[in-house]
Amino acid sequence: MDSEVAIIGASMTQFGQRDAWIRELLAQAGKECLADSGVSPPDVDHVYVSNMASGEFEGQTGIMNALAHDLGLMPAYSQRIDQTSSSGGAGIYAAWQSIASGSSDMTLLVGGEKMTHKGTGGATDVIASITHPVEYKHGVTLPSFAGLTARHYLEKFDAPRDSLAKVAVKNHKNGVDNPKAQFQKEISEEKALESPIIADPLRLYDFCPITDGSAALMFCPVEVAEEYADEYAVVSGVGGATDTHVVHERDDPTTMGGVVDSAETAYERAGVGPDDIDVAELHDMFTILEFLQMEGLGFAEKGKAWEQVEEGRTERDGELPINTSGGLKSKGHPLGASGVAQAVEIYEQLVGEAGPRQVEADTGLACNVGGFGNCVITTVMEAR
Amino acid sequence: MDSEVAIIGASMTQFGQRDAWIRELLAQAGKECLADSGVSPPDVDHVYVSNMASGEFEGQTGIMNALAHDLGLMPAYSQRIDQTSSSGGAGIYAAWQSIASGSSDMTLLVGGEKMTHKGTGGATDVIASITHPVEYKHGVTLPSFAGLTARHYLEKFDAPRDSLAKVAVKNHKNGVDNPKAQFQKEISEEKALESPIIADPLRLYDFCPITDGSAALMFCPVEVAEEYADEYAVVSGVGGATDTHVVHERDDPTTMGGVVDSAETAYERAGVGPDDIDVAELHDMFTILEFLQMEGLGFAEKGKAWEQVEEGRTERDGELPINTSGGLKSKGHPLGASGVAQAVEIYEQLVGEAGPRQVEADTGLACNVGGFGNCVITTVMEAR
Repeated sequence: MDSEVAIIGASMTQFGQRDAWIRELLAQAGKECLADSGVSPPDVDHVYVSNMASGEFEGQTGIMNALAHDLGLMPAYSQRIDQTSSSGGAGIYAAWQSIASGSSDMTLLVGGEKMTHKGTGGATDVIASITHPVEYKHGVTLPSFAGLTARHYLEKFDAPRDSLAKVAVKNHKNGVDNPKAQFQKEISEEKALESPIIADPLRLYDFCPITDGSAALMFCPVEVAEEYADEYAVVSGVGGATDTHVVHERDDPTTMGGVVDSAETAYERAGVGPDDIDVAELHDMFTILEFLQMEGLGFAEKGKAWEQVEEGRTERDGELPINTSGGLKSKGHPLGASGVAQAVEIYEQLVGEAGPRQVEADTGLACNVGGFGNCVITTVMEAR
Repeated sequence: MDSEVAIIGASMTQFGQRDAWIRELLAQAGKECLADSGVSPPDVDHVYVSNMASGEFEGQTGIMNALAHDLGLMPAYSQRIDQTSSSGGAGIYAAWQSIASGSSDMTLLVGGEKMTHKGTGGATDVIASITHPVEYKHGVTLPSFAGLTARHYLEKFDAPRDSLAKVAVKNHKNGVDNPKAQFQKEISEEKALESPIIADPLRLYDFCPITDGSAALMFCPVEVAEEYADEYAVVSGVGGATDTHVVHERDDPTTMGGVVDSAETAYERAGVGPDDIDVAELHDMFTILEFLQMEGLGFAEKGKAWEQVEEGRTERDGELPINTSGGLKSKGHPLGASGVAQAVEIYEQLVGEAGPRQVEADTGLACNVGGFGNCVITTVMEAR
């Protein structure tokens, strides 16, 4: 860990329902990231593709090879990274390692997923393939875990149901100012609370949508970064952790062990703590996860995250803005792209390119969750 | 690249047609590797799973999470690595980076694939999903590329057809002494030359089989290795490269650019050249590939590899034994496992654990090929 690793460019395609297939989405984000960072294709040493399931979604594999080909990056090293919904965060970790180990002086990371053509049932089925067979055979899906966890949390900590709706309302409000977001419209708390029940007590507006999209980042050593950019970000700490595959084996369903463990590593490597974080992107695949991550990351005491949301502390103009991008809730959640897109938002906030979403921030954090907390990556980034 | 990276343990399940599913195969190899290296589960920091297509083959994803769970490795970081047929080699590169970057002090790599239940047609279709759409729509598969390339090579370099059969005969002969190999029986040159045509001029015995299996390696810094083992191996150089996705765009079909480029990096990092290699495992998915890799790696001059095979130089008692394990040809080719299994053989040769297959070797090389040379990883290992 001698070398400091910088991020010098970022990009993100339109998220939503797209006609483009996975290789086109990856190529679009990749090209835009090359342009944004001012890097020529022959100068790229490594290219990583974060993607969970291009084979299952559209029968196309070898997409790292396709991307290297389409961007003219050969003979750069190329590889696909899968950690289910946290593939993007795992890509950040791999890109960081490629630079920190001295293997690469310029690493392009592109995350992407093409899902909407499968429909809700088909996409849910692909995602449910990550569950343990002992749970899968009982028909358990990720939304059902979320419902059970939400009910438990609300009861245990005496939290009001509308505190969950407030997460959705906040993230939709932020998404209005993100032109790349799948949804760019505000919703009311009443609308959220009256939407159809999906997994009681969670309703439609507690869930992120199914999304097509891609996002990219360019990594290099800080010495190289200075040749390309006056302002850039550094990945000052990144950590990953794994929790049980069988979700019901965990001691406390309201604690995400992977969040706690990955954050401990990331904070330690960065030499910072939760109080030093100015802006954060959390994995709000379900509204309840925003509470659990706030607590696991140390932003709130156990059982108290909902109070901070009620008090407006996590609003864009609050003390600790969370999901200024709109989060997965309104920006959308193309599995392999999401962790990358979280870091794209933090990067833009740190270098002052977030436009109407801009907040004041020197240090940011992204927390990307795979499965139902099965694998988690936490990344701390700082402005330079 | 300050830290030297050691391998202190290795394992391999029985290769062949197995009743076990992917998570059982991975767990078996993983457990045996922990035992072989004397490492306790809580001491593992990172676990990588090399696998191309568990979702496509059996509808199970999240297998890195499953493996961490089954071996009791939580909260270790876990991730899946896909580079199609070279996923195993890519796993070696990732494991090496995890140690060299200081992220991990103990990394378990397990490669595996479960394929046979799909049958030849189903498995070939999953593999063909890596081809570029412009070639796929014409019905091109990897075996057909091999047939075209073999015909071109034989004509261009005036090589006899039976030189290809000699590769199959040699590798089957070596496989007899590998109790984990899918086939443990010799074949005659006549039998190979009279077997059914698959892709003219290549016949059945020019192709590796479809296989289930798993293999594993344990990586750590050399300082740590000395606490665990008197004899171990170091990964002295590893390099990866990408070639065009569209195979027919390559200038010379008899040159594997990815082999040449990845070897250049691996040799440079290791500070050695082809003449320093004592034993090698090459990716003989098709017999013709053994010639192309020998030439790309600098073991033979362009167009001359077949002469070395005819002269017996690559036999187990020859000057440069190639595929002492039996190679993919007789050991079998469970996609994500193969690159790991190649390095398992080199490790066993270097530490003197290869039993009846043992040759004299201080420096070994493994070359793992994805697609039809689309992605290639070359690894140089040395005995310590």
